[in-house]
Amino acid sequence: MKKVVKFGGSSLASAMQFEKVGNIIRADKSRKYVVPSAPGKRNDKDEKVTDLLYQCYDAAEAGKSYKSILEKIKERYMEIISGLSLNMSLDEEFNVIEKNFLEKAGRDYAASRGEYLNSLIMAEYLGFEFIDAAEVIFFDEDGNFEADLTDQVLSERLNKAETAVIPGFYGSKHDGTIKTFSRGGSDVTGSVVAKAIHADMYENWTDVSGVLVADPRIIKDPEVIETITYRELRELAYMGASVLHEDAIFPVRKEGIPINIRNTNKPEDKGTLIVESTCRQPRYTITGIAGKKGFCSINIEKAMMNAEVGFGRKVLEVFEKYGISFEHMPSGIDTMTVFVHQSEFVEFEQSVIAGIHRAVEPDFVEMESDLALVAVVGRGMKATRGTAGRIFSALAHSRVNVKMIDQGSSELNIIIGVRNSDFEEAIKAIYDIFITTEV
Amino acid sequence: MKKVVKFGGSSLASAMQFEKVGNIIRADKSRKYVVPSAPGKRNDKDEKVTDLLYQCYDAAEAGKSYKSILEKIKERYMEIISGLSLNMSLDEEFNVIEKNFLEKAGRDYAASRGEYLNSLIMAEYLGFEFIDAAEVIFFDEDGNFEADLTDQVLSERLNKAETAVIPGFYGSKHDGTIKTFSRGGSDVTGSVVAKAIHADMYENWTDVSGVLVADPRIIKDPEVIETITYRELRELAYMGASVLHEDAIFPVRKEGIPINIRNTNKPEDKGTLIVESTCRQPRYTITGIAGKKGFCSINIEKAMMNAEVGFGRKVLEVFEKYGISFEHMPSGIDTMTVFVHQSEFVEFEQSVIAGIHRAVEPDFVEMESDLALVAVVGRGMKATRGTAGRIFSALAHSRVNVKMIDQGSSELNIIIGVRNSDFEEAIKAIYDIFITTEV
Repeated sequence: MKKVVKFGGSSLASAMQFEKVGNIIRADKSRKYVVPSAPGKRNDKDEKVTDLLYQCYDAAEAGKSYKSILEKIKERYMEIISGLSLNMSLDEEFNVIEKNFLEKAGRDYAASRGEYLNSLIMAEYLGFEFIDAAEVIFFDEDGNFEADLTDQVLSERLNKAETAVIPGFYGSKHDGTIKTFSRGGSDVTGSVVAKAIHADMYENWTDVSGVLVADPRIIKDPEVIETITYRELRELAYMGASVLHEDAIFPVRKEGIPINIRNTNKPEDKGTLIVESTCRQPRYTITGIAGKKGFCSINIEKAMMNAEVGFGRKVLEVFEKYGISFEHMPSGIDTMTVFVHQSEFVEFEQSVIAGIHRAVEPDFVEMESDLALVAVVGRGMKATRGTAGRIFSALAHSRVNVKMIDQGSSELNIIIGVRNSDFEEAIKAIYDIFITTEV
Repeated sequence: MKKVVKFGGSSLASAMQFEKVGNIIRADKSRKYVVPSAPGKRNDKDEKVTDLLYQCYDAAEAGKSYKSILEKIKERYMEIISGLSLNMSLDEEFNVIEKNFLEKAGRDYAASRGEYLNSLIMAEYLGFEFIDAAEVIFFDEDGNFEADLTDQVLSERLNKAETAVIPGFYGSKHDGTIKTFSRGGSDVTGSVVAKAIHADMYENWTDVSGVLVADPRIIKDPEVIETITYRELRELAYMGASVLHEDAIFPVRKEGIPINIRNTNKPEDKGTLIVESTCRQPRYTITGIAGKKGFCSINIEKAMMNAEVGFGRKVLEVFEKYGISFEHMPSGIDTMTVFVHQSEFVEFEQSVIAGIHRAVEPDFVEMESDLALVAVVGRGMKATRGTAGRIFSALAHSRVNVKMIDQGSSELNIIIGVRNSDFEEAIKAIYDIFITTEV
């Protein structure tokens, strides 16, 4: 049994947090491979070490004084080291970092030091081997992650290590330059490590007890999802639920390795299990609700449109010309509505409308802005008749005007368009009818 | 006040029906312009004169004996003439028709004689002027209706006639050849006549008391729609409700002339008023329900599809290549489903699937056949929250599995995909919840 355990920044923000992490790792012998993030915030007013590193680099680059920021970073680590009563010094490391800063090793190098240093401390604290991510995780010259090469090298290297700490977030190009994943990329490192050693589980430790059914900024203390499929998670994430880095799914999904989202501050909670598929009946009919504001709809009407082969294609071509991806395209009879991101669309609005007129000669084109999309996601919906009825009755009861409904034959989700101003109310209504009522 | 009155075949199938029509016309002095169809069926086992004419022509064309069929046709008219005690003979007309048959005046010519002869009788019976449609309704060399020329000539001609009978269904090309509209085209003639004289009303007299809320083959004695907009009618007609010839809407719609569907056998019924728009609140939340069987869905899944600009366009291009028009294209996250007519699709099925694989490299493509689409149409839906909730609750209660939902921002209709086998049940459930329950 081998588990990869990744800890987020808030789980490693202080010596006290390190101790919690240590207890978690020691409580289960199968937790052999540890992927730390850089120290996060200790409280609301605190700064993340990664942010400090970027500040420090930018100051050095601009020829400004960076010493005080570097000192602040060093203090963060010293506090952890002394808090854990470790017998180690990072002086030499900081000398190298400062030297590299001045030699312009790059912004990614700077940013990566947060994970690098935290992993050195973690390895010392746990008595695990330290493996620098720069030696086992690779990017090509254009900065694209090289999955196959990484898997091969990482796999060979980890097979020689009984236990190890591998810093998250970064790797290296072939010339040795440090390159990072996008922000939150330690999730990806954990996933890549899990794939390489064929882990039985990838535990992703954070400061929440799992994936929530709905956004806690809208629903007070929402329920935690017990089990979610990759597919469902992707849908919720796409619609705005922030859980894992998007690219963290693919490596483990390919290998069928489940991900367990856990809470470092509440290790007794079982968290959320993310799986490829499961026979387990979901606890509620729906798995989760997510949504985003800021869409607009372009409603195109033309008599006898349905008889015109190529109509839809021509309309989409206009959007494509301006690099605008459409989110949904519900169609009635002689009408077709295209939902797009308002921010992407607004610049090209008039060009797109003119283009549509030229392309398909519509009877008229109407736009509506400030719309939101809400996705109700759940594998349980397929087995349960009446889900749509409950959703729309609940929305009507909450006086939410439904502007759009889109449900394909996958039956895994229903997408609902509402006004931005009805967004929170819509999510509350759906949450209440499926979760509060079913509890 | 000027009304154009068009009578369908069953309204003119016998002398008795002619008398009803005569009473209707005489009851309202504004019913000045009459457009008759050919005599229809007098009972279930009867034949329509137009069908007999086609048979007769085909026999003559094939060098077979046609005399007995022509005799049968003549008898139908003689029966009407004698039943109405008219002092007129069609012998000369039938001699000309037979001669033209042998000289191959064409199939359209043959078919048009049903309306032509019926109109001669009607003009005689009413004491109205007879105006041959061949002299006032025009088609170009390719057989396309010439709206502008027709409107001009017809308008001038009708302004000289206080009252007139104009045969439905046909007109002529510039070389004098007779050309018909497609079957049911007398509706179009009536509409063109109404436009030309700027009628206040286009009355379309049939054997039903108006447009029905649902198909009477599925719902026993469905309610009649009191007022319907052109738009709603088009939507119901597109989804299978058969009322008026599709092309009959445009001429009057352009002029804002309302159409009144009436029942010759129940002239006391007010029928259905078809209007451009109306402030009149609809009697029920929904105006009508229609639907069609025989669709199939192609469900395309690909991870991160939503991030690919051009994905939808590329998929539609494949369908377009094979001349297949799509009906609906609901999309989720990383999935997109295309609904097409099974009959159009089945021949190209494998080519389309292969084309999709080449065009967008999907993770997988799945098909489902034997699906039906149901359209719930109604301008009242926009003002009434909860319509969707009621529809889907009713469907769930009737154990109908909803495969697809499509509602754009027009809010005039909701399209629902169900299995063919659930089609009738779905319509019943929706009819019951909105009509039976609201009565």
